Amino acid sequence: MALSIPKGTRDYSPAEMAKRNYIFDTIKNVFKLYGYLPIETPAMENLATLTGKYGDEGDKLLFRILNSGNYLKNLPGELFNEDEIPALTAKISEKGLRYDLTVPFARYVVQHRNEIVFPFKRYQIQPVWRADRPQRGRYREFFQCDADVVGSASLLNEAELLQMTDAIFAKLGIDVVIKLNNRKILAGAAELMGRSESLADITAAIDKIDKIGLDAVKGELAERGITPEQIAVLEPILLLSGDNGEKLDAIEKIFSAQQGAGLAGVAELRAIFDYVKELDISAPVELDLSLARGLNYYTGAIIEVKARSVEMGSVCGGGRYDNLTGVFGLKDVSGVGISFGADRIYDILTMLNLFPESSLRTASVLFANMGRREEIYSLRAVRALRSEGIAAEIYPDAAKLKKQMEYADKAGFLFVVIAGENEMASEKFLLKNMNDKSQRELCLSQLLEELKNPKAR
Amino acid sequence: MALSIPKGTRDYSPAEMAKRNYIFDTIKNVFKLYGYLPIETPAMENLATLTGKYGDEGDKLLFRILNSGNYLKNLPGELFNEDEIPALTAKISEKGLRYDLTVPFARYVVQHRNEIVFPFKRYQIQPVWRADRPQRGRYREFFQCDADVVGSASLLNEAELLQMTDAIFAKLGIDVVIKLNNRKILAGAAELMGRSESLADITAAIDKIDKIGLDAVKGELAERGITPEQIAVLEPILLLSGDNGEKLDAIEKIFSAQQGAGLAGVAELRAIFDYVKELDISAPVELDLSLARGLNYYTGAIIEVKARSVEMGSVCGGGRYDNLTGVFGLKDVSGVGISFGADRIYDILTMLNLFPESSLRTASVLFANMGRREEIYSLRAVRALRSEGIAAEIYPDAAKLKKQMEYADKAGFLFVVIAGENEMASEKFLLKNMNDKSQRELCLSQLLEELKNPKAR
Repeated sequence: MALSIPKGTRDYSPAEMAKRNYIFDTIKNVFKLYGYLPIETPAMENLATLTGKYGDEGDKLLFRILNSGNYLKNLPGELFNEDEIPALTAKISEKGLRYDLTVPFARYVVQHRNEIVFPFKRYQIQPVWRADRPQRGRYREFFQCDADVVGSASLLNEAELLQMTDAIFAKLGIDVVIKLNNRKILAGAAELMGRSESLADITAAIDKIDKIGLDAVKGELAERGITPEQIAVLEPILLLSGDNGEKLDAIEKIFSAQQGAGLAGVAELRAIFDYVKELDISAPVELDLSLARGLNYYTGAIIEVKARSVEMGSVCGGGRYDNLTGVFGLKDVSGVGISFGADRIYDILTMLNLFPESSLRTASVLFANMGRREEIYSLRAVRALRSEGIAAEIYPDAAKLKKQMEYADKAGFLFVVIAGENEMASEKFLLKNMNDKSQRELCLSQLLEELKNPKAR
Repeated sequence: MALSIPKGTRDYSPAEMAKRNYIFDTIKNVFKLYGYLPIETPAMENLATLTGKYGDEGDKLLFRILNSGNYLKNLPGELFNEDEIPALTAKISEKGLRYDLTVPFARYVVQHRNEIVFPFKRYQIQPVWRADRPQRGRYREFFQCDADVVGSASLLNEAELLQMTDAIFAKLGIDVVIKLNNRKILAGAAELMGRSESLADITAAIDKIDKIGLDAVKGELAERGITPEQIAVLEPILLLSGDNGEKLDAIEKIFSAQQGAGLAGVAELRAIFDYVKELDISAPVELDLSLARGLNYYTGAIIEVKARSVEMGSVCGGGRYDNLTGVFGLKDVSGVGISFGADRIYDILTMLNLFPESSLRTASVLFANMGRREEIYSLRAVRALRSEGIAAEIYPDAAKLKKQMEYADKAGFLFVVIAGENEMASEKFLLKNMNDKSQRELCLSQLLEELKNPKAR
């Protein structure tokens, strides 16, 4: 029998868990410092909640749960036909696995609106599932780490999300650049082009500029029916250069003919950059007028974070959405949020060798098992260590010492404690350091002192 | 549109998350102290891994994932028939959600046997899914907290699991009694009855003794074809009384005629009870010869833990299994493990009001927002607090102070800091304690000192 797990999913070994937990804990601790509170939602949602929220492409990528029991009951035979798959699927499955954390959060906010105190700052770290074609760096089960504020239109929220992002990457030791734009600027540009109705198409094309370059974006805009004259209006906006202030001045000048969405976007960006100055954000925050992000629900600020020292897509992204809860019947609740990609952060920390030593060690102190009487003697010391908060264990059998030392070595123990007849007679323990092979005879209180030292562990 | 989540699943609010995390952290910290290391496995497993491991009843309770794409391709029309549901299901779904953590762990051990260093001590805290009929206290998504050692037959493992269980419930403040039995004793009894081949039936009946009583168990045994003479052999074993030593002596006497599995079970129990004495376990550990536990894979020790002060099923259970990895092709790897039920523990802590104050508080310090200049002044203090590890936030808008105080009250903040014009002029902050309504004017360093005190938070 060939053992395997589904394509695109992963097992996490203790060594991988330690590294992943280092990432999750770093992110979580900063979220908490900023007053975000955790929630969790079920892995399964009703398909009525999920479908239609991620576009046709997204709907196809939902994992659907087959109904239990007699799921064919009262179904007409015509449905058993390859052309009827969408209709059949709707009849035989009512639940699906969550595709992201944003839609379940919007559902949560609306469902629990009477218990929630707004503004509501929540974080959520849970797996999501997508029936995508698995490939390097793309999984069918992966974790998202999201923080969102809903019920406040204040731009201080955007600024604090940037500050929080800066704090998280600083703690992880990853040099990043934070890119900022505003969907209203893109809307203003579409308005200027006389193509407000094509904002989604324009955004989708611009979104690829990093991957395919300006010329290809222009080609794609043309394919989507944007005329050369209209593209000529957009191009100088995408090409604006200078520092943030210069770019804002220039775009303001372009928009000043119209008093539409474009100018509102400029004003929002100015306010956010003012906060950025006050908040001592150490990573560069750059206005990038070509930053679009594909998700259609963004209506204001758009945020994207890239690592500076490695070639990799964005490690973090987010923005403001004015009406995400609207699809669930709750209008006028503005929100802004950010999502961290744990897998890419994991890959960057691995490539740059940035995992701290403490996140690489799993095992700590092993007591060798030298026989029945010695075992009882050692178990008392093990108990004393544990009650001091030191992880310790004893080899479960009185196997040959060589075998036990091999186990300690392979399992990555830093210390082995040996207590045989001689040590017992003098009420001592032999402490072996597996790194430098040094060893010392210590009494129990010395052993505790030595192993309590966090550096020793 | 009526918003809901699937029956038997739950959202967790920040208040519920805090309490759940208190339980998970308590369990996890003890697991770690005992040298158990975390792993995680995917939510989805191939159905080939899951089916046939939980009995027919369990197979029916698996949540199955509908295959993606054209799942009807090349399927004969005859399968679209209520009588063909099992065959159709096998064709249109290849993956299922995990039903417990034990089978995925056995699969993990076999799949990764070349990387694992044995004995391997792992813990795993993840949700599992069962398509059971939801009812009070029974959910379709719930969390299991498992610790297992594989690759060691030493009974010290059993003893350490008992010690660990004792430590966890002591930390949670729940008075428990730990019940112990050995599957070999039950096998010995079946042998004595001349019904070794009916061990599974006998065990399944005895398993219900707590719920339905001895008479009903005898009725069920009769229904399962056990003769009155055979039941008469079993009954005195189930009725044995006295302390653990007296029961062991009595059962040893009963078994001494045969040199079979029964005597081996007695010897194992004696060894475990010897360890229990050495290990200073504070909860009572009672030999319960009627303890059976339904799971067929147990072969040695059986453990079950009950709370003493509340009427509730077991809060924790486990045992030794000699050949769980055998179904996946890896023979002779003995394991022993224990599983904690987070939901029942949650209910008990709630009923007995045992959640510590620290696990009930979610929000901490709120700065009121008194206007643009004051906001900048407060943001510096917020930053200083956060860099000291104190969770703090500022109200995002300069709303009316009354509204902000209402928010602080409803969201459960213990402290509100106010800095208006007067405080700014004297470089002070007004710290309001929301519990006792007291307030003090402090400079930044005093504010930090005051809020760093863990009791204050």
